[in-house]
Amino acid sequence: MSLTPKTPHESLTIQTHLVMPNDANQLGNLFGGQLMAWMDEVASITAFRHCGNVAVTASINNVSFTQPIPLGSYVILESKVSRAFKTSMEIYVDVYLETRDGNRSKCNEAIFLFVAMDEDGKPLPVPQLNPVTTEEKKRYEGALRRKQLSLILSGRL
Amino acid sequence: MSLTPKTPHESLTIQTHLVMPNDANQLGNLFGGQLMAWMDEVASITAFRHCGNVAVTASINNVSFTQPIPLGSYVILESKVSRAFKTSMEIYVDVYLETRDGNRSKCNEAIFLFVAMDEDGKPLPVPQLNPVTTEEKKRYEGALRRKQLSLILSGRL
Amino acid sequence: MSLTPKTPHESLTIQTHLVMPNDANQLGNLFGGQLMAWMDEVASITAFRHCGNVAVTASINNVSFTQPIPLGSYVILESKVSRAFKTSMEIYVDVYLETRDGNRSKCNEAIFLFVAMDEDGKPLPVPQLNPVTTEEKKRYEGALRRKQLSLILSGRL
Amino acid sequence: MSLTPKTPHESLTIQTHLVMPNDANQLGNLFGGQLMAWMDEVASITAFRHCGNVAVTASINNVSFTQPIPLGSYVILESKVSRAFKTSMEIYVDVYLETRDGNRSKCNEAIFLFVAMDEDGKPLPVPQLNPVTTEEKKRYEGALRRKQLSLILSGRL
Amino acid sequence: MSLTPKTPHESLTIQTHLVMPNDANQLGNLFGGQLMAWMDEVASITAFRHCGNVAVTASINNVSFTQPIPLGSYVILESKVSRAFKTSMEIYVDVYLETRDGNRSKCNEAIFLFVAMDEDGKPLPVPQLNPVTTEEKKRYEGALRRKQLSLILSGRL
Amino acid sequence: MSLTPKTPHESLTIQTHLVMPNDANQLGNLFGGQLMAWMDEVASITAFRHCGNVAVTASINNVSFTQPIPLGSYVILESKVSRAFKTSMEIYVDVYLETRDGNRSKCNEAIFLFVAMDEDGKPLPVPQLNPVTTEEKKRYEGALRRKQLSLILSGRL
Ligand SMILES: CC(C)(COP(=O)(O)OP(=O)(O)OC[C@H]1O[C@@H](n2cnc3c(N)ncnc32)[C@H](O)[C@@H]1OP(=O)(O)O)[C@@H](O)C(=O)NCCC(=O)NCCS
Ligand SMILES: CC(C)(COP(=O)(O)OP(=O)(O)OC[C@H]1O[C@@H](n2cnc3c(N)ncnc32)[C@H](O)[C@@H]1OP(=O)(O)O)[C@@H](O)C(=O)NCCC(=O)NCCS
Ligand SMILES: CC(C)(COP(=O)(O)OP(=O)(O)OC[C@H]1O[C@@H](n2cnc3c(N)ncnc32)[C@H](O)[C@@H]1OP(=O)(O)O)[C@@H](O)C(=O)NCCC(=O)NCCS
Ligand SMILES: CC(C)(COP(=O)(O)OP(=O)(O)OC[C@H]1O[C@@H](n2cnc3c(N)ncnc32)[C@H](O)[C@@H]1OP(=O)(O)O)[C@@H](O)C(=O)NCCC(=O)NCCS
Repeated sequence: MSLTPKTPHESLTIQTHLVMPNDANQLGNLFGGQLMAWMDEVASITAFRHCGNVAVTASINNVSFTQPIPLGSYVILESKVSRAFKTSMEIYVDVYLETRDGNRSKCNEAIFLFVAMDEDGKPLPVPQLNPVTTEEKKRYEGALRRKQLSLILSGRL
Repeated sequence: MSLTPKTPHESLTIQTHLVMPNDANQLGNLFGGQLMAWMDEVASITAFRHCGNVAVTASINNVSFTQPIPLGSYVILESKVSRAFKTSMEIYVDVYLETRDGNRSKCNEAIFLFVAMDEDGKPLPVPQLNPVTTEEKKRYEGALRRKQLSLILSGRL
Repeated sequence: MSLTPKTPHESLTIQTHLVMPNDANQLGNLFGGQLMAWMDEVASITAFRHCGNVAVTASINNVSFTQPIPLGSYVILESKVSRAFKTSMEIYVDVYLETRDGNRSKCNEAIFLFVAMDEDGKPLPVPQLNPVTTEEKKRYEGALRRKQLSLILSGRL
Repeated sequence: MSLTPKTPHESLTIQTHLVMPNDANQLGNLFGGQLMAWMDEVASITAFRHCGNVAVTASINNVSFTQPIPLGSYVILESKVSRAFKTSMEIYVDVYLETRDGNRSKCNEAIFLFVAMDEDGKPLPVPQLNPVTTEEKKRYEGALRRKQLSLILSGRL
Repeated sequence: MSLTPKTPHESLTIQTHLVMPNDANQLGNLFGGQLMAWMDEVASITAFRHCGNVAVTASINNVSFTQPIPLGSYVILESKVSRAFKTSMEIYVDVYLETRDGNRSKCNEAIFLFVAMDEDGKPLPVPQLNPVTTEEKKRYEGALRRKQLSLILSGRL
Repeated sequence: MSLTPKTPHESLTIQTHLVMPNDANQLGNLFGGQLMAWMDEVASITAFRHCGNVAVTASINNVSFTQPIPLGSYVILESKVSRAFKTSMEIYVDVYLETRDGNRSKCNEAIFLFVAMDEDGKPLPVPQLNPVTTEEKKRYEGALRRKQLSLILSGRL
């Protein structure tokens, strides 16, 4: 697997969902856990696309659900690498809600840390990330601080 | 609904699972997203038991997955309220792995914040929490700091 | 695998569920088949915990559904070994319904017979059971009679 | 709804399934709970066909699993009313395994008791059953005895 | 595997379903995609029964959904081989809706082309088909024309 | 709802999936029926985006599966309106397979016809389509012929 650096766009992953009856709680809104499962799936595909190997969730940071998502909503998940470290990658998942007149509003976001793995479960080096847009650069800058925070919170640092 | 304070034990919720083929990735280990979905389900039942109302996930803090969970594993999720605020409750989900000789080892944990809701989606006051054991007291102490961190990270403070 | 006798408590298995739209029939109540699937899953984990091996369902006796379980209910399944024979174990699954004020009422029960298996599908000896409480002793006593009845009904005796 | 008596054949219900990876345990065989869920679904359709109303599972009697069903198997479920009482119907589900040369062998059976319901959950009268074949007559005869046994086991008689 | 010709009846496959909340869209009707998944499953079992080998979907022709299927409906799928070619088989799936008074109306149909496969994914010869009823003969006649049309549309002819 | 014409790009819908064990047959390849279910979901979102109303599957034309899709594959579905008629829209779903070095190859396609619906299930007028790229124009041209073919095959013309 080549370790040539990549841009965030190269591993952008999109998933569009319609919220179905079984995804919703008694108030008729999407369950947080269902959204987390979709987020983890797109993030894992992004990680695969960036590094060309299977990658596993090492930690999840800073998830906030600011808006309920009612049954029948169209939900778009977009996931991009925000920074690559040695064997780990930070991945941002942005969640948008789309109304019937085609307007999109961002409703949630989550930040994952994935680690690339060989067949025996050993961490593998990953390609570096070259951020391009202003937002990509801002997320890239913040990623180092978030990683340290996560290592502290998990008692590894 | 009475607002008499409760102990963590009163809303302890347990779920035991067997990891099935469709829960696992290509390396034969449990997907992080599947575990998150189970965690959110038990945490929401704990929140219901503590406050007697439907409660929704407002944020997820500090999830770290330190150990892969192979197919065929027996996984135990235990979820308890660690602190109650005005309308929100912090909930700890501890995840254990059980081997065939009955030994349990803690493999993962996650901390959720749930908010109690009335029928119209308005936040509702919740009973306070009286921690009892040493660990419950320690988690209770830390909860305030974590809540502030979460409000900052989500840009609400 | 050691064959030291165990108490029922050592393999007690708990699963808590929220009844979701897809689990319910047209009257808005939990399907019997969904409840059976949950029961079989907890019972198989109990069997594994008692004997330390994979175990398979050999028969199901005496299931009665005495109360409909409406959508949005919190359902608790508790499963314990009630008697161990040579290679088979009788397992009781008690099902409780929990209301929003925290009251529990028993709504259903089922009695399973599981057989321990080696890798080639051959029955394996299991540890004996030492019942402790009055109810455990009562169920232990009745188990022999139920096993004979089951063998007769299946035409094996 | 007319209460004209019906033959078992009029409500015969068939379901054919391919056993998929997620239906199987670690030994690669179909879970008992999955089979129970399929059985309950076909039995509930049979009950509907016999009485023209929604019907719910009241009890399950005499299930024995005599043969493991490996992944990739073709499984046929056939379900027929064996006797109608006042508001309840006894239903037989026969399970067959089909090999690649088209041979069928019966591997399991279960006997359910369903009760017909109106919109408010009140039991409704059902049409009587006229058994036709020798086996149908034999099952019809045995049904009364099984119903009493089930009432005794559930402590209602 | 013998290549003795077979009749359509020998591989007739039936599946009966109750339309559940999670199978339905916001209008409360069965999703086309869910019906397609059920159709493909029964058709693949029919193909297996006709040729005694695993068979894969090569193309789908002429699916029309002429009637919405509301939640709570009883749906019957019947699938038969309509013609066998060298390694491929045309399979008709007829879908019926059943009302509470037991009337059946055909609501949809689909025509699949399956190809028999050995373990390495190589096409395998299949037994020929002997149509018996008038409808079977009519479908048999039309199959050749449909196969050519399908080959043209897929750019293979 | 405005009936201003739209470009195909405005309702482009993307879904990325990882093929999981339960999606695959005994040869370890994706089931045709599972792919059809995913296709129908993205196509229905595309239709919604084009017309701003719920839309239902009326027919499926010309599906050919030219390549097996092994377990663990990354599959991308892209769906676009190819022509709008009075109340119906033709929708193309292109399916791509992505390898670990990031190469994409088109493996399958399907053409759906959806009809826009009001709350009572009455067909509703949809905005016209303005094709832009060469391929969009080519598909637009072919759509009329395909619609007629589909009407003939379903016996409506
Ligand atoms: C959570 C939610 C109800 C908060 O609503 P709101 O109008 O902001 O209400 P409030 O400002 O009164 O906040 C309610 C409580 O939540 C807390 N809270 C909200 N967001 C938080 C966050 N990201 N981190 C920590 N605490 C948070 C507030 O501090 C307050 O706590 P307190 O009453 O115990 O002091 C609202 O954001 C919401 O509905 N989110 C979607 C929930 C959901 O559907 N989750 C699943 C998504 S798929
Ligand atoms: C993630 C995992 C591979 C790390 O293994 P390890 O032996 O600790 O490996 P390392 O110490 O080399 O860590 C690998 C990388 O992960 C990072 N990391 C691990 N845990 C982390 C955490 N909680 N927060 C932030 N970074 C973390 C390390 O800093 C290192 O980053 P770098 O190489 O980019 O500098 C291991 O903990 C694991 O397998 N966890 C389970 C993953 C899983 O199965 N998830 C789903 C659970 S259901
Ligand atoms: C259960 C099974 C292993 C029994 O195999 P067997 O060759 O008959 O083995 P044995 O005769 O040694 O019986 C094993 C034990 O099961 C008991 N048993 C088997 N069927 C029974 C029944 N219907 N009722 C009560 N006990 C039963 C025997 O009495 C014996 O008990 P013991 O050793 O504790 O005294 C075998 O029938 C089987 O594999 N069934 C399928 C299990 C399965 O896959 N379930 C899911 C179906 S989808
Ligand atoms: C179907 C498949 C096996 C054909 O392979 P191939 O190498 O083209 O083999 P052949 O050319 O020998 O074709 C085999 C038969 O299929 C027929 N066929 C293949 N594609 C067809 C199409 N689109 N329409 C009609 N017939 C078709 C051929 O005419 C031939 O029929 P015959 O032997 O009865 O005369 C191959 O395309 C494949 O594996 N497709 C994927 C199947 C799959 O995985 N489906 C699920 C997708 S999620």
